[in-house]
Amino acid sequence: MSGRPAHAQDVRTYDPDRPVDPRVEALVNELIGRVADKWTLLTLEALEDNGTVRFTQLSRLVPGISQKMLTQTLRQMEREGLLTRKVHPVVPPRVDYALTPLGHSLGEAFCGVWTWAEDHLAEVEAARAAFDKRAADAL
Amino acid sequence: MSGRPAHAQDVRTYDPDRPVDPRVEALVNELIGRVADKWTLLTLEALEDNGTVRFTQLSRLVPGISQKMLTQTLRQMEREGLLTRKVHPVVPPRVDYALTPLGHSLGEAFCGVWTWAEDHLAEVEAARAAFDKRAADAL
Repeated sequence: MSGRPAHAQDVRTYDPDRPVDPRVEALVNELIGRVADKWTLLTLEALEDNGTVRFTQLSRLVPGISQKMLTQTLRQMEREGLLTRKVHPVVPPRVDYALTPLGHSLGEAFCGVWTWAEDHLAEVEAARAAFDKRAADAL
Repeated sequence: MSGRPAHAQDVRTYDPDRPVDPRVEALVNELIGRVADKWTLLTLEALEDNGTVRFTQLSRLVPGISQKMLTQTLRQMEREGLLTRKVHPVVPPRVDYALTPLGHSLGEAFCGVWTWAEDHLAEVEAARAAFDKRAADAL
């Protein structure tokens, strides 16, 4: 987080004395807010796994996303420099999307979260069941 | 991502032959969708940096969050087992929140994303400026 504790598998160590520029911290928070978005993340995953893909393929690869949300997510990701959008001058026009090196690097950074989710799925499900039982018992 | 490329600072390697159970993948995607949320992440960060905190402190530590969204985020995070909510029987009642070990482990997993955001802030800002210029030129 902003204090940069070492990643579990990371060789870096947490340095509490490293100064944090409040302006940088605000910008990082804003950027995190943008990329820590369910649809951005699932779109990133679909592109990471499938390379260059067309809009219609993507809408199948990201289950549950609406056309409007996919359009918006792709446009935002293009703006952040995470993907390229290429329009082929054919009839009907073909548009395809691929991750940039920056997009791939974000995918790698999120890898720890994916691993976390896989490793702790059972624990989260047990916590949810216990919470729902407590909530039901309180009624 | 679901194909588990190695984390940049990770000793594990990407194994394309490792089978992925589609049911596990769907659950992981759903869990990612839940935790990859701006407010969850900023709340996680505030708790990581400040230890046990009260509701009113949290609302100051997570800039821009509404009372309603903070209540909802804390409740969801409690349900997922990421934090504990403790009500002290005093008048007026005092309620405080702290991360569980599971919550701390998620914070560690997200550390790579924080580092990514710090490392690539300038690159993202340049991409945004270039995109906005192209969009303005196209008008």
